[in-house]
Amino acid sequence: MDSNFFKNNNIHLDLAVEAREVVRGQTGQEIPGCIMEKETYDNATVTIVRIVEKYAEEIMGKPQGNYITIEAPGIRGNNKQTHQELVEILSKQLASLFNLPEHANALVVGLGNWNATPDALGPKVVGMTLVTRHMYNYAPEEIHGGMRSVSALSPGVLGLTGIETAEIIKGVVEHVKPELVIAVDALASRSVERIGTTIQLADTGIAPGSGVGNKRTGLNKETLGVPVIAIGVPTVVPAAIIAGETLDRLVAQVKDNPTLQGVYQSINSDTFQPIVNAILQPYTSGQLMVTPKEIDSLIENTAKIIAGGVSLALHPAINAEDYSQYIH
Amino acid sequence: MDSNFFKNNNIHLDLAVEAREVVRGQTGQEIPGCIMEKETYDNATVTIVRIVEKYAEEIMGKPQGNYITIEAPGIRGNNKQTHQELVEILSKQLASLFNLPEHANALVVGLGNWNATPDALGPKVVGMTLVTRHMYNYAPEEIHGGMRSVSALSPGVLGLTGIETAEIIKGVVEHVKPELVIAVDALASRSVERIGTTIQLADTGIAPGSGVGNKRTGLNKETLGVPVIAIGVPTVVPAAIIAGETLDRLVAQVKDNPTLQGVYQSINSDTFQPIVNAILQPYTSGQLMVTPKEIDSLIENTAKIIAGGVSLALHPAINAEDYSQYIH
Amino acid sequence: MDSNFFKNNNIHLDLAVEAREVVRGQTGQEIPGCIMEKETYDNATVTIVRIVEKYAEEIMGKPQGNYITIEAPGIRGNNKQTHQELVEILSKQLASLFNLPEHANALVVGLGNWNATPDALGPKVVGMTLVTRHMYNYAPEEIHGGMRSVSALSPGVLGLTGIETAEIIKGVVEHVKPELVIAVDALASRSVERIGTTIQLADTGIAPGSGVGNKRTGLNKETLGVPVIAIGVPTVVPAAIIAGETLDRLVAQVKDNPTLQGVYQSINSDTFQPIVNAILQPYTSGQLMVTPKEIDSLIENTAKIIAGGVSLALHPAINAEDYSQYIH
Amino acid sequence: MDSNFFKNNNIHLDLAVEAREVVRGQTGQEIPGCIMEKETYDNATVTIVRIVEKYAEEIMGKPQGNYITIEAPGIRGNNKQTHQELVEILSKQLASLFNLPEHANALVVGLGNWNATPDALGPKVVGMTLVTRHMYNYAPEEIHGGMRSVSALSPGVLGLTGIETAEIIKGVVEHVKPELVIAVDALASRSVERIGTTIQLADTGIAPGSGVGNKRTGLNKETLGVPVIAIGVPTVVPAAIIAGETLDRLVAQVKDNPTLQGVYQSINSDTFQPIVNAILQPYTSGQLMVTPKEIDSLIENTAKIIAGGVSLALHPAINAEDYSQYIH
Repeated sequence: MDSNFFKNNNIHLDLAVEAREVVRGQTGQEIPGCIMEKETYDNATVTIVRIVEKYAEEIMGKPQGNYITIEAPGIRGNNKQTHQELVEILSKQLASLFNLPEHANALVVGLGNWNATPDALGPKVVGMTLVTRHMYNYAPEEIHGGMRSVSALSPGVLGLTGIETAEIIKGVVEHVKPELVIAVDALASRSVERIGTTIQLADTGIAPGSGVGNKRTGLNKETLGVPVIAIGVPTVVPAAIIAGETLDRLVAQVKDNPTLQGVYQSINSDTFQPIVNAILQPYTSGQLMVTPKEIDSLIENTAKIIAGGVSLALHPAINAEDYSQYIH
Repeated sequence: MDSNFFKNNNIHLDLAVEAREVVRGQTGQEIPGCIMEKETYDNATVTIVRIVEKYAEEIMGKPQGNYITIEAPGIRGNNKQTHQELVEILSKQLASLFNLPEHANALVVGLGNWNATPDALGPKVVGMTLVTRHMYNYAPEEIHGGMRSVSALSPGVLGLTGIETAEIIKGVVEHVKPELVIAVDALASRSVERIGTTIQLADTGIAPGSGVGNKRTGLNKETLGVPVIAIGVPTVVPAAIIAGETLDRLVAQVKDNPTLQGVYQSINSDTFQPIVNAILQPYTSGQLMVTPKEIDSLIENTAKIIAGGVSLALHPAINAEDYSQYIH
Repeated sequence: MDSNFFKNNNIHLDLAVEAREVVRGQTGQEIPGCIMEKETYDNATVTIVRIVEKYAEEIMGKPQGNYITIEAPGIRGNNKQTHQELVEILSKQLASLFNLPEHANALVVGLGNWNATPDALGPKVVGMTLVTRHMYNYAPEEIHGGMRSVSALSPGVLGLTGIETAEIIKGVVEHVKPELVIAVDALASRSVERIGTTIQLADTGIAPGSGVGNKRTGLNKETLGVPVIAIGVPTVVPAAIIAGETLDRLVAQVKDNPTLQGVYQSINSDTFQPIVNAILQPYTSGQLMVTPKEIDSLIENTAKIIAGGVSLALHPAINAEDYSQYIH
Repeated sequence: MDSNFFKNNNIHLDLAVEAREVVRGQTGQEIPGCIMEKETYDNATVTIVRIVEKYAEEIMGKPQGNYITIEAPGIRGNNKQTHQELVEILSKQLASLFNLPEHANALVVGLGNWNATPDALGPKVVGMTLVTRHMYNYAPEEIHGGMRSVSALSPGVLGLTGIETAEIIKGVVEHVKPELVIAVDALASRSVERIGTTIQLADTGIAPGSGVGNKRTGLNKETLGVPVIAIGVPTVVPAAIIAGETLDRLVAQVKDNPTLQGVYQSINSDTFQPIVNAILQPYTSGQLMVTPKEIDSLIENTAKIIAGGVSLALHPAINAEDYSQYIH
């Protein structure tokens, strides 16, 4: 699918690694102004994409900053030890993106709609986060050691509240005055392979307009005045992408067949769109989503891993074992 | 898609109207041994397919009996008056499929998994059904007038209980001794257009192996010893079908182009399967489903309509207004 | 129980009519600076207590303002027509407490903890409220006629977020700039008779420290800068009150017996407290609550009535029938 | 409270240790035909009451058999290691009550109403139980080693289904043919101290009429034809008991005062009942329950402990660590 297809179907690619694939697919070359690193663990591969030059922003369709993708098929599994390892990897990668004083104040924001299972990840993480801010001022300083003041909020979505998410967060940030915001959100991906296998961290916050079909004002340093780290997890693929990808692959086969070159030239994204529309009607692009049947338990498990990683990264005095001891 | 595609992808077409379309699509002719009637209402079209001859069973892939399809886009809407009209249409059509004495005993069975939103329709209907059996023996006969003895059960799914649904129902039927079983189930459809717009009634019960990806022993007169009416509502489309349908439509376009006849001949269902597999991996066919984003509220509304229709059909003394008065 | 008992057990009387009863119980006289009116409906009695003089504030333990109590045993029932009547009564009484321009902007706040059934009333009402603010600026003015710009928010409770409810609301109010805040909350009552039968409206907002056991900063004109109407519904009685009330009644019997006057004088609230503590330990006062078994469905029904009343009062163009048509 | 109070208020004491206390309170002596043992653990005390003689049945109000009470305040806590120890204690005590062949077939039944939080314990345990029966016949025998064939069912309550729980279980037992039934249920207790601190096991099954206010036919060897072990957990105290207990304690104080002997003689259970009725009206005894505010999370944690203990006891090949590894 070319980038027109994404535009036409109102699909925003939330994952930097996917955006990079699309760009490289078109040009076949490394992207200038972009650095990539890889780390390998028993149960995960970590890819770090750093957009370091201003001019690379437009090519990638993403602002300058660091994008960390944790790929771990074990997220979908039920093995608790694997999950604990992922909590530790996530915690370490997350901590690499911020630099906070010992007694700093952080706000965890769970984006998304708690009434729609695949979009409920953020609110679920908020419900499992180790919140300390309300006890922080009462507790003697010695027990602060290694604990930070953490608060957490699920603002809901525009359709439920009538208020832009960013407005709510802004109002709360002005009162709570955190030194860091961590925003957790369910994402749409271009590939079903990413559902339940990928976690993305980005120190650029959330750009305007991303997320599962909800346009919104960005949550980032410009809008909130404090650094924002976004944690995103693909939980759905728009049905339009499944249709588009199918056409792409058929065409790729035809293209390799020398006698069918003529056909290939007659098939392009203008041919695609009416077909995709016909299949998805009466729904519009963006209303239909592909999810695995076990999405309810997948969201539950993923929320536990993320809440664990966030809590460990924010409270350095708690180690992974303590954490798994006290929260379950 | 030819019927091989459905077989290969382990997709069972639950709707008789869809099966009929597939068959007619292949032969282009009316199906012998099959009668079709249509009724039109303000907010609904009702199609009745009667498989009247034994030999039509194999062609249609469905046992002899009556299949009533109510098509009503208003199911997806939020207009309560439309919903009330649908309750009445459903009630009338349902009543046309059974012939019960005044004081008969009926059991409503809600199939499906309450932990997976699109599959939770049956259990939700059971939760909203007007149950009377436990009070029936204590109440004086005069207030029985027009009320029947109704009980209701959600047996869960094999993965949750370790017990075949049919075994549980059989055991309960032997004790409760109903004269009719009504089984409500969420279905997979071949078309997203059917999601939230279609209700199917069938007096043949539920065939072995149908439902959202769950193989099961049938629930019908042979297995339970009493008539079984199935109420099915499409709530998902397997993602494999979206992919298959896309290919079909592209091919159809190519086919109409005289210069591309050669291409058309080189593309068939053997070409399709690897493409579909590649797009859906690592998931297998049947694990990935397409649903509208608002599936949670769609299931809730549909359950209300069905519970209403079932309660009115079973308790003739209650009219639609009474019902909407006492249950909400 | 004398007022010491309430203080000792950290019980705050949220209902003005109850506070009035306690005060009158002690003095046996009408309360100066306080006006009381009554209206009678088929299914409800409405009592309006107006605290009109400053000096009555201390006697009543409540700030100057209007307190409307709707008593309607039908809230607990399942009759939809009764519920519709209550929606209209609530709407009318609520509208009597504010005076808003045609295009005003109102914010509905649902206080309480969605994870604790009896305290989830506020969040449930928010989920059912007809929210329009996000569409308001896009819609042409002629369809504004009689609709106001309404937004809604459930801030959660301190233990879940680490943030004082009032801080969140304040931050949001500064951005949304509503001309009225309506805050819905579940209350503790001193009498089980009030559970599921009483709705209280007050144009004084919410005082610091009230609500089901949660200390909090007040939500009122002083703290938020805009008028605040509180809608409260008793959903629990603290278990300590049941114990205290039992002792009271036994003592009342003894008191009437002339030969036992001596006993009566030896029993006072100092005798009571150790008994109450012993019965409720290891729980502390305020941790144990009395609720009816059917509390889950009671909260659901009450939330529907309140969301209906609020929506009708805020959108005068919608009449009760329209409302029941479009939302269910 | 004397036993008339319990009878008058339709309160059945589910815990054998409580029944024993009531009986001993009346007679002040050890109960003949009854043996008591105690085991002490770091985080729990285990009391085993064996009713060994027929004539002790009537005194205790419970059938002959073994009643094991695990008292552990840590159930209410959030320490996972304590919970894991309780899983092991429960598993060991449970295993002491049955004697099953290696490949036996067991059915776990979750009694109670999933729509009423304090009564949802049984259904929640069923949802967390390690079910194997559906895979058992397909798996090669060598991997059966130490695993038994386990199925699980939540039948719902009479008000939801119109069918006696015992009828449903009986029907299922006839088809599944288990060699053991384990029935999990939430209980009413006479003391708030027991809520969230006590688990009772009994190899006598469930007597007719017990449970949280639901009369029902017994689930035991006579009715089902196979041994039934009941696991009960107090989650509520009837509000009538709080009132009754308060009166008891006041009277006990008066009784010790020599000058008030006259008063004491004038106060008896006939004096009590009208007082209790007056306080709880318009609710009847049994409709109002006392629970801790955190009942939702208490039920969740307790269900995890019980599902763990049941799974370990039924599958000896799984040790506690494996279990906590795979389920969470």
